[in-house]
Amino acid sequence: MTKIIVDAMGGDNAPSATVAGCVEALKDDKNLYLILTGRQNEIEAELKKYTYDKTRLEIVDCPDVIDMNDIPTEAIKRKQSSLIAAYWMLKKEDDICALVTAGSTGATIVGGQLILGRIRGVKRPALCPAIPNSRGSFTLLCDCGANAECKPVMLCQFALLASAYAEVGFGIKNPKVGLLSNGTEEHKGDPLHQQTYKYLTEMQGINFTGNIEGRDIMTSQCDVAVADGFSGNVALKSMEGCGKLVLGVMKKEFSATLSSKIGYLFMRKAIKRMRFQLDFNRYGGALLLGLKKVVVKSHGSSKPQTIAASIANAAAIHRNGLVPAVEKKLESVDFNSLIQEEE
Amino acid sequence: MTKIIVDAMGGDNAPSATVAGCVEALKDDKNLYLILTGRQNEIEAELKKYTYDKTRLEIVDCPDVIDMNDIPTEAIKRKQSSLIAAYWMLKKEDDICALVTAGSTGATIVGGQLILGRIRGVKRPALCPAIPNSRGSFTLLCDCGANAECKPVMLCQFALLASAYAEVGFGIKNPKVGLLSNGTEEHKGDPLHQQTYKYLTEMQGINFTGNIEGRDIMTSQCDVAVADGFSGNVALKSMEGCGKLVLGVMKKEFSATLSSKIGYLFMRKAIKRMRFQLDFNRYGGALLLGLKKVVVKSHGSSKPQTIAASIANAAAIHRNGLVPAVEKKLESVDFNSLIQEEE
Repeated sequence: MTKIIVDAMGGDNAPSATVAGCVEALKDDKNLYLILTGRQNEIEAELKKYTYDKTRLEIVDCPDVIDMNDIPTEAIKRKQSSLIAAYWMLKKEDDICALVTAGSTGATIVGGQLILGRIRGVKRPALCPAIPNSRGSFTLLCDCGANAECKPVMLCQFALLASAYAEVGFGIKNPKVGLLSNGTEEHKGDPLHQQTYKYLTEMQGINFTGNIEGRDIMTSQCDVAVADGFSGNVALKSMEGCGKLVLGVMKKEFSATLSSKIGYLFMRKAIKRMRFQLDFNRYGGALLLGLKKVVVKSHGSSKPQTIAASIANAAAIHRNGLVPAVEKKLESVDFNSLIQEEE
Repeated sequence: MTKIIVDAMGGDNAPSATVAGCVEALKDDKNLYLILTGRQNEIEAELKKYTYDKTRLEIVDCPDVIDMNDIPTEAIKRKQSSLIAAYWMLKKEDDICALVTAGSTGATIVGGQLILGRIRGVKRPALCPAIPNSRGSFTLLCDCGANAECKPVMLCQFALLASAYAEVGFGIKNPKVGLLSNGTEEHKGDPLHQQTYKYLTEMQGINFTGNIEGRDIMTSQCDVAVADGFSGNVALKSMEGCGKLVLGVMKKEFSATLSSKIGYLFMRKAIKRMRFQLDFNRYGGALLLGLKKVVVKSHGSSKPQTIAASIANAAAIHRNGLVPAVEKKLESVDFNSLIQEEE
């Protein structure tokens, strides 16, 4: 049985979307056991709407909820909150293998670092979503916002963490790694990225293929796009914004005239396939890589199917051994001899 | 007569696309006079395909062409090249008011700084494209790649330069300025962006509305998105990549089945309207702001209509007085007293 803890109060649509997502996940995976943290009465009221296997779900009552406006370093002291209680249980109980939350990104990152803890040798955890690409597959963008300020050694580790995720989560052998910069040439970028380029070229344990540009995240052969958390976040949000705009314009135009409405009737299936292929949330949320257990940060606006996908992804990559894979990769690189200039 | 000089050899499809674009521009605007720099025989061979007003077009023979692989600081010494010859004429001849090129971005920037020269007080020129947004209008993204390394004073000036462009080029009064960061909260970003936020709040001459995220470039109320050239470039390319992927998937899915093919027949006009609304090149290329005259850098893969749009935009913003508008805005801010910490 794979035991996963879910912050039932995290996200804009909690607890209704989280509870519905949990029920869906339990239905899809008979070897799943879920612990929901949050306000017991609210969760129970939602659960009443569904039939589900009650022997595989338990609730831990937490009266407090962290919201998006709370300061993360303060928020993680609130042990009665659904997210922080979940982190403490994840840390203490060996048989709980993963955490899923759609709550505050900041508190999730700080809680991961300070409560759960990093894998030995990891400088900083990194957020890593799976972005749909033109090959019909996914590009892992790492980091996409956990670290606004980065050093070369951190970027080198992001390459390693995301490579392990690509292998374990997507079965990609020797995943191709690109460094997100403002041009493909070697000399491009600021000193941070120029230096990182040099280290990545020398580093063992990854398959570095050079610089990539923003457009390459969705349209190149790369499996992993390494980014500092600032520009990685800008890239992710820019792609999301563009996708949202295009789908919005499409919706408007496709219902603008009688002719286009008729056309839409013939095209519904094609549009559905298209939406599926371009779904940023098909694998649920972003992984918070580098921690001692699997943590998935689902989008704040997660719908039930997003939560269910996040839980399914968390279960799969735990079963496939993400954490041991990261540990093994870390052992293969001597960061102190690779990077002498720093710290 | 508005006299514009065009680097006829710049871009992947030169000189055929540039020449065709020039012919189109001359047709659309009877007060336009074009000077084409480049290999005379090649340009003349292309021109033979069209009928156009020969009294409003001249060729300056330049045997040399700068390509994308040339090092910009070296390339600008090549006075026989189509781009550098154009820059020298633009500098020396008062009646030439603008330059349009689809050639090397690096050489265009370096040439602008070292040959044409900056407006007094401008620290660095910045690239500023117009990105289609959800309001059916455009957001000006500045800088999107001229400066991989930035200081707060540069970002403050980019806000000013792009505000002048929004007023002069798009008739927007008191344009709303957002700072591209990794979150909307004031404390977000690295020290560069945190410091810039503070200065922009205090600065005269602009209408600063706070931090924006990547998704807001295409979907918010902002007229101007200020960015360091590194993350601005990442944002631009990420949006382009996403747009390209979505349109690619759409094309594939819409011809996948008989039903979707029938639907497409009914939807052609809707799809055409959609493509128009989402066209990154409707205003041609990016402006290189902060220089003594108007310079437009068109996309390397520019088609004839992109070149024509770049020329039309260059003519319009020259006529509307972009450079005097920038000068006036610069006079309204005392950067030395605003920013004491630097240099």
